[in-house]
Amino acid sequence: MGRLLSSLAQRMRPSAIREILQLTEQPQIISFAGGLPDPALFPVEALAAAFAAAIVRDAGALQYGVTEGHAPLREWIAARLGCPGVGTAQVAIVTGSQQGLDLLGRVLLDPGDAVLVERPTYLGAAQAFAWQQPRLCGLDCDEEGPLPAAVAEAAAAAQPKLLYLMPNFQNPAGRSIGLRRRRALVEVAARCRLLLVEDDPYGELRYEGEPLPSLLRLGAEAGAPVVHLGTFSKTLAPGLRLGFVATTLPLLRELNVAKQAACLHVSTVIQHAVARLLNGDFDLEAHLRRLRAAYGARRDAMDGALRAAFPEGLRWTRPQGGMFLWAEVAGREVAPWFRAALDRGVAFVPGDDFFADGRPSPAVRLNFSNSDPSRIADGVLRLRRAWDGLA
Amino acid sequence: MGRLLSSLAQRMRPSAIREILQLTEQPQIISFAGGLPDPALFPVEALAAAFAAAIVRDAGALQYGVTEGHAPLREWIAARLGCPGVGTAQVAIVTGSQQGLDLLGRVLLDPGDAVLVERPTYLGAAQAFAWQQPRLCGLDCDEEGPLPAAVAEAAAAAQPKLLYLMPNFQNPAGRSIGLRRRRALVEVAARCRLLLVEDDPYGELRYEGEPLPSLLRLGAEAGAPVVHLGTFSKTLAPGLRLGFVATTLPLLRELNVAKQAACLHVSTVIQHAVARLLNGDFDLEAHLRRLRAAYGARRDAMDGALRAAFPEGLRWTRPQGGMFLWAEVAGREVAPWFRAALDRGVAFVPGDDFFADGRPSPAVRLNFSNSDPSRIADGVLRLRRAWDGLA
Repeated sequence: MGRLLSSLAQRMRPSAIREILQLTEQPQIISFAGGLPDPALFPVEALAAAFAAAIVRDAGALQYGVTEGHAPLREWIAARLGCPGVGTAQVAIVTGSQQGLDLLGRVLLDPGDAVLVERPTYLGAAQAFAWQQPRLCGLDCDEEGPLPAAVAEAAAAAQPKLLYLMPNFQNPAGRSIGLRRRRALVEVAARCRLLLVEDDPYGELRYEGEPLPSLLRLGAEAGAPVVHLGTFSKTLAPGLRLGFVATTLPLLRELNVAKQAACLHVSTVIQHAVARLLNGDFDLEAHLRRLRAAYGARRDAMDGALRAAFPEGLRWTRPQGGMFLWAEVAGREVAPWFRAALDRGVAFVPGDDFFADGRPSPAVRLNFSNSDPSRIADGVLRLRRAWDGLA
Repeated sequence: MGRLLSSLAQRMRPSAIREILQLTEQPQIISFAGGLPDPALFPVEALAAAFAAAIVRDAGALQYGVTEGHAPLREWIAARLGCPGVGTAQVAIVTGSQQGLDLLGRVLLDPGDAVLVERPTYLGAAQAFAWQQPRLCGLDCDEEGPLPAAVAEAAAAAQPKLLYLMPNFQNPAGRSIGLRRRRALVEVAARCRLLLVEDDPYGELRYEGEPLPSLLRLGAEAGAPVVHLGTFSKTLAPGLRLGFVATTLPLLRELNVAKQAACLHVSTVIQHAVARLLNGDFDLEAHLRRLRAAYGARRDAMDGALRAAFPEGLRWTRPQGGMFLWAEVAGREVAPWFRAALDRGVAFVPGDDFFADGRPSPAVRLNFSNSDPSRIADGVLRLRRAWDGLA
């Protein structure tokens, strides 16, 4: 069969994280490895009612639909984004933001094109883009993300098309880009003629600090080209596989042509149900407050447990939101710690795979959204014991 | 922005059929143009109940899921296919068979690879494959599909990787491949080392004649490599965007790696709901009998109306199932007839676009699944008046 596989398929490998997740699926393992929201926080009853109503009452909920997506849903998203120039026509519905990344890769990248990414960066973006065979160029980052000077330098050196950023509570690093840095990055992207791709899955999950304007909005104000990716995976439920692409740039037509070839359109059942939920009497703000309270407490639990257990040896930024904490490891290797931790019933993701261009620095990604505070405390103690066992 | 688009995106065009469908969306138009099932035949109540039950009762219905798909659904599909060697592990869930085509293109085709297709062929397959830049080679067909000798000849000339066939009630031609021809095609594919892609969206919608063994089954018996694509779009509802790929060949691992990059996985909500429906007390056989009775009557209505209205000038095969009738036009051009018909409030799809390699012969595709018999009779009369108006 090797003869029949495309040359790209022969080169692609399953995500290393996915392999780790399979290791950690046993219920006795305390897993800080995945990136799962807590199913206990899904709006189950509201979703069940919305699906039943959509299926029984909406004429189009089970029929083929338009590729760009269900208009009432796109309209809601445009209003929520609240960005000048972004109306219903500037929003396209996709099968989770993962499909948004895949389609953007298809319509923007030719083999060999350079893409600037953060160090570390989101693995799913690297995987989606990989099918277009780009060169991924990692940008040096501080606790706020990429340094504008590093962007300018890399742009001059590599002539990239895209700058891919996750400005809020980045996966994996947990860091956020402040307002001043956002403006500077938008400015440098415009100056270097880079299309800025803003991936924002976690923006609604902020546990402290004021919400900051999106790169989409700052780009609109500054005349810089930005494509924004959003999702309902963290606010409603990931099983919906419902995301969106929003941009004032004239590329949604091409994106929808690619989407038509890829899957025709996102399930109309899903789109109608979620449009009903959001446009109905579901109290989204109350739901988001509930999520933020629960996940914020877990963030605090992990931060506190790490402070108590690792007065030295690890360094992490307390994330202002999201689902992950990134801990840099001083003076030891991650792999033996990972194995020792697994032996003690706790899992995390070693940081190496998040460095899309290689040159990893020793670190681990810790997820806090899918374990309650007492399990988090127990897991961090086990991490410490595994650490000590190696000393 | 042209500077930023990939070279492929710059070349891709929206489907011509899609443009036609937009023309024909007004409710006063009798449309034989689309390929829509009749929403009055969707199992609305059963689906509403299945979604509600899945969301409220299934732990995994709203969470991230595995890329290969929900095991109880894959198990049901494997049992339904009833093909030796095809168990749960040989089935992958996809976002409609359109995604199956797209993923197969990714994992099988390199730019320039040749793919043998029927003349005419399904437009969606040509669109999906186009992103891999293959050469599509059209095969001469009789009323049963491709001639085995034409396959052997094209295989020798073009060294193709794939032979893409829709054996049951083909879209657009409505024709079916008989048992003897199926065996001959499987045999010639094996001999020429072609991977046979069997796309079977309509197989369950047979209105006369005995069901024939799938190419998947014949391939398993003959040791010929076959990939089978199926969907719930025609049997349950297309808005689900739920399809599957089944094969005994070792390529599902690669397909799932591609799928992970493309969208992670199909909505777990959809998968759990449909698995509940199919494994529960829903009477699928009774539902399919209802569909076959209704669509069979529409096929008869269109066939009868065409016989009465076009004693000469058109030639069509009475399809044994599916949703389409293909009428070859003798001695005139299709385009003026299309415009005159639209003026009289009836639409169809001109056949040219279904010839993936060019060289079209004058014909039209007529859909009968989404109009009731009286509307079909009215529409065919209008087609005749438009035809006469051009004489």
